[in-house]
Amino acid sequence: MCRLLTILSVLFSTAGVCQIQNQPDDNQWPMAAKNYASTRFSTLDQINTGNVNSLKLAFTFSTGLTRGHEAAPLVVNNTMYIVTPFPNLLYALDLTKPGAPSKWVYQPNPVPASQGVACCDVVNRGAAYYNGRIYYNTLDVQTVAVDAATGKEVWRTKLGDINLGETMTMAPIVAKGKVIVGNSGGELGVRGWVAGLDADSGKIAWRAYATGPDKDVLIGPNFKSFYPSDRGTDLGVKTWPGDAWKIGGGSGWTWISYDPQLDLIYYGTGNPGPWNADMRPGDNKWTCTIFARHPDTGEAVWAYQISPHDDQDYDAVNENVLLDLNIKGQNRKVLVHPDRAGRVYVIDRQTGEVLSAEPFAYVNTTEYVDLKTGLPKIVAAKSTGFKTVRDICPAAPGGKDWQPSAYSPKTGLLYIPHNNLCMEFQGVQANFIAGTPYVGANVKMYPGPGGNRGLFTAWDPVNAKPVWQVKEEFPAWSGAVVTAGDVVFYGTMDGWFKALDAHDGKTLWQFKTGSGVIGQPVVYKGPDGKEYVAVLAGVGGWAGAVVAGGLNTVDGTGALGFSNAMSDLGRHTTKGGMLYVFSLP
Amino acid sequence: MCRLLTILSVLFSTAGVCQIQNQPDDNQWPMAAKNYASTRFSTLDQINTGNVNSLKLAFTFSTGLTRGHEAAPLVVNNTMYIVTPFPNLLYALDLTKPGAPSKWVYQPNPVPASQGVACCDVVNRGAAYYNGRIYYNTLDVQTVAVDAATGKEVWRTKLGDINLGETMTMAPIVAKGKVIVGNSGGELGVRGWVAGLDADSGKIAWRAYATGPDKDVLIGPNFKSFYPSDRGTDLGVKTWPGDAWKIGGGSGWTWISYDPQLDLIYYGTGNPGPWNADMRPGDNKWTCTIFARHPDTGEAVWAYQISPHDDQDYDAVNENVLLDLNIKGQNRKVLVHPDRAGRVYVIDRQTGEVLSAEPFAYVNTTEYVDLKTGLPKIVAAKSTGFKTVRDICPAAPGGKDWQPSAYSPKTGLLYIPHNNLCMEFQGVQANFIAGTPYVGANVKMYPGPGGNRGLFTAWDPVNAKPVWQVKEEFPAWSGAVVTAGDVVFYGTMDGWFKALDAHDGKTLWQFKTGSGVIGQPVVYKGPDGKEYVAVLAGVGGWAGAVVAGGLNTVDGTGALGFSNAMSDLGRHTTKGGMLYVFSLP
Repeated sequence: MCRLLTILSVLFSTAGVCQIQNQPDDNQWPMAAKNYASTRFSTLDQINTGNVNSLKLAFTFSTGLTRGHEAAPLVVNNTMYIVTPFPNLLYALDLTKPGAPSKWVYQPNPVPASQGVACCDVVNRGAAYYNGRIYYNTLDVQTVAVDAATGKEVWRTKLGDINLGETMTMAPIVAKGKVIVGNSGGELGVRGWVAGLDADSGKIAWRAYATGPDKDVLIGPNFKSFYPSDRGTDLGVKTWPGDAWKIGGGSGWTWISYDPQLDLIYYGTGNPGPWNADMRPGDNKWTCTIFARHPDTGEAVWAYQISPHDDQDYDAVNENVLLDLNIKGQNRKVLVHPDRAGRVYVIDRQTGEVLSAEPFAYVNTTEYVDLKTGLPKIVAAKSTGFKTVRDICPAAPGGKDWQPSAYSPKTGLLYIPHNNLCMEFQGVQANFIAGTPYVGANVKMYPGPGGNRGLFTAWDPVNAKPVWQVKEEFPAWSGAVVTAGDVVFYGTMDGWFKALDAHDGKTLWQFKTGSGVIGQPVVYKGPDGKEYVAVLAGVGGWAGAVVAGGLNTVDGTGALGFSNAMSDLGRHTTKGGMLYVFSLP
Repeated sequence: MCRLLTILSVLFSTAGVCQIQNQPDDNQWPMAAKNYASTRFSTLDQINTGNVNSLKLAFTFSTGLTRGHEAAPLVVNNTMYIVTPFPNLLYALDLTKPGAPSKWVYQPNPVPASQGVACCDVVNRGAAYYNGRIYYNTLDVQTVAVDAATGKEVWRTKLGDINLGETMTMAPIVAKGKVIVGNSGGELGVRGWVAGLDADSGKIAWRAYATGPDKDVLIGPNFKSFYPSDRGTDLGVKTWPGDAWKIGGGSGWTWISYDPQLDLIYYGTGNPGPWNADMRPGDNKWTCTIFARHPDTGEAVWAYQISPHDDQDYDAVNENVLLDLNIKGQNRKVLVHPDRAGRVYVIDRQTGEVLSAEPFAYVNTTEYVDLKTGLPKIVAAKSTGFKTVRDICPAAPGGKDWQPSAYSPKTGLLYIPHNNLCMEFQGVQANFIAGTPYVGANVKMYPGPGGNRGLFTAWDPVNAKPVWQVKEEFPAWSGAVVTAGDVVFYGTMDGWFKALDAHDGKTLWQFKTGSGVIGQPVVYKGPDGKEYVAVLAGVGGWAGAVVAGGLNTVDGTGALGFSNAMSDLGRHTTKGGMLYVFSLP
């Protein structure tokens, strides 16, 4: 991987999407998003549109656990690494042997009480390989480094406190020798942060809070946002009432991308707390914001708040896919961000300028985004507070939630698994008690226009429009992957693992797994030279908590509003925790 | 099934193994053992020795549970029924729809405390279909009847008391309108029984204890055993010291066969309690005994005690396969019983006469079985008591435990999945406290001769000798099935599901499931006319309790002695609970 990172650096220094398809080490899958650019694109093409319908299951592996399985398996040096939901086991499977037997299992033994603090199932989204080690987070707010060959713990660092409502569920990346991680807990009144740990020692090198004074947010003299609304001193304090920023959320609970040439990491911050917007007048910076920072110091270079004073739980945490695109005749280094608010943002990743922000889902909360000011034109009737507002679209989990999209440089399309949900939102008083829910809203979700709760959309980021779209009965809550064979893979919550034609969305093949799929499919080349597609099945996560947690759905506001929308999920799938690995016969 | 039973009755009335292969409704799998004769033979031959290596996984289904999965799925009217380990869910899967979605799930909600009484994991071995209903047992000693179409409970009957150490794990059969069930708990000082319940109402029609006075054992004037040692009055009392018969075991925890022509059911009783044989001088009747009874009254017709005064936990509970064989020139109605003591008993099922009893496993506890007296020639040095005895073979789980064999009328061979284990046995004082272990022995098991802990043996019951044998690293703890395509299927505890050539044992195909296989494979024809093979993977049971129960294996006497022998199992498999269904492409 050390070598791989070097190669990636070289690639990025000569830059360009066209390079991504020539990435030489595509036999492996070293981080959840495949690469720093987060394309989830594999150059392997043995499995293609012509033969994918003869895919066959090569082997399976049971994690022994039945909560939501959202992680991406990693594949490095003919070993597959799997992180499970709580208790966050790390399995190493030997791909050189028949049936891929386990080489070892590392057990971090996170504090059981951490399960009680996790807002939305006890998921984990995966690990990162770097320099002979596997790095990942445990639910009880620790980052661990494990020797990739032996399974021995190298170090573990405690980063937060479950008694304050903090957990960790995101997949780290390792950039410039720093392991970049962030906390979860936006529904429990945490103060959000992202931190960089020294990869060798585990020592915390920096921590950048999402709220509070500039010194805590690591905003210094070099900070220069593109839009005036994102400039000013100590906005992380001034845009909040009183001390509300101290419990204001903005957690860094999902994806981090990295551009080695610009030496910048990109990530979005979570929703402000509580959801009831009347309890926190102001822009609530820097929640729902995309940050560009240097990975070694955490210093912020620019920020862009997508949803000032978020009314609907529209975290800005979704993935940022780093591409070099020709937009209106100009080559631009962009990040493509399919946001929870329902729009695909294409943003100049050097400056933070928004180049387009068109809806990929049904949106009635904003009319448009003013590219001159960067501000959304809010539909006032859909703003929340101490009242009941009906027919808010998208619902709290957004047009898309954590489920990561994939980009193919061959088709030029972004493949987005996402939601089609609306909600009724009743704002109520929230009282902060550390380590307990701090939401202030009773929410009921239901299907959006058309009645289907999910969509899978192929998006053209250059022309800012959809190319094709597939309807799904349930929210498409899994990740996506796309290959040079022009096949897109993703899974559904009722357990179908699907292969679509990347050009037109036609279903080429599907397989019924044992449990709903909310994992991230990955593609690799085995020691036998064959291409493999791997995915974890195991329903859960926020959308599947009704099944994974066995919730009674009589109260439709359960599972933070998902209970109503998913009350029938238990009739369509069962709990599970199983790896499926497919190849051609 | 009502129709099927009638057809079976007709078949049996004209009798003969040759009929079994012509059994007309082989598209289905209505009871765990396939049919009353317990052959586990399917006349389907679409999958054969020539094409089995192209088997492909058709679909999977997660039970959402991760304890040992020993059940046989049932297939009736294009619906598959799956009983899980505790909490004993019953799933109905619709085989007419893509991916076989769940139609309904029945939840009996057994008392959680029953898990604490189960000696050896919380398994369930399956259900029986009869006349529009599914019948099965719950761990907390209830038999339930469920409407096969709707999943609604029709009745439930409580048969025992977990506070006395009783549980139920066996798969019932329905014979002559009676649901025949039995209790588990031989390691907790229960008094064993088998009972017949009215299939319509659930009312207990009869209960036959394994110990106690003849009136409790349902021994009456028509009782006539073949051997003198099995004749006499109230032997269930007289062959015990004092009142020891009241807590003497002999539970009916596994298989029941039925011959409609003779109108007799056949089953074996479990070990006497406690294991320490010095604590119970005498023959300890009727433990370790095969009974022939009428299904409607329970009346005993004959009994044969295989292991009088059992020294080694050699329950006689293994399956009795009902065959009509030509033995030494005579057509005999026999039952073939591969016993825990390591010998295949071929017994005239009309009289109880033993025709042969040759070893299929390595045996050093008996020299031979005297066919004139029916008594085994005991090796005194291997008898247990208040002492330590080393190198006892087979070990407590026997040459074979519960794992059921299959018989092919085409090859004339019985396919036996079994163990190759020996043990050290230290007898200690056992004190009876109801609902707690009553064993009186510290046991450590280890691999038998050759070092392999498992074997799969093809046995010729006519000539009383093995034809071929396959070694397995772990005890072969799954059931077996054999088809008219001359393929034998079984699974291993490290997760391989295998297809062997029925003629020579050559491995034709194998697939790595996600968890160790201890389930019972079944074969059926789908609504699309294709032949399917289904099996549950999910390691556990007595042999796999170290993984399913997460036991510390430092104490080698844990899991009733299996801990030592299976200390490495956790490095070879993980917990799981998944249905795998295979077919040709």
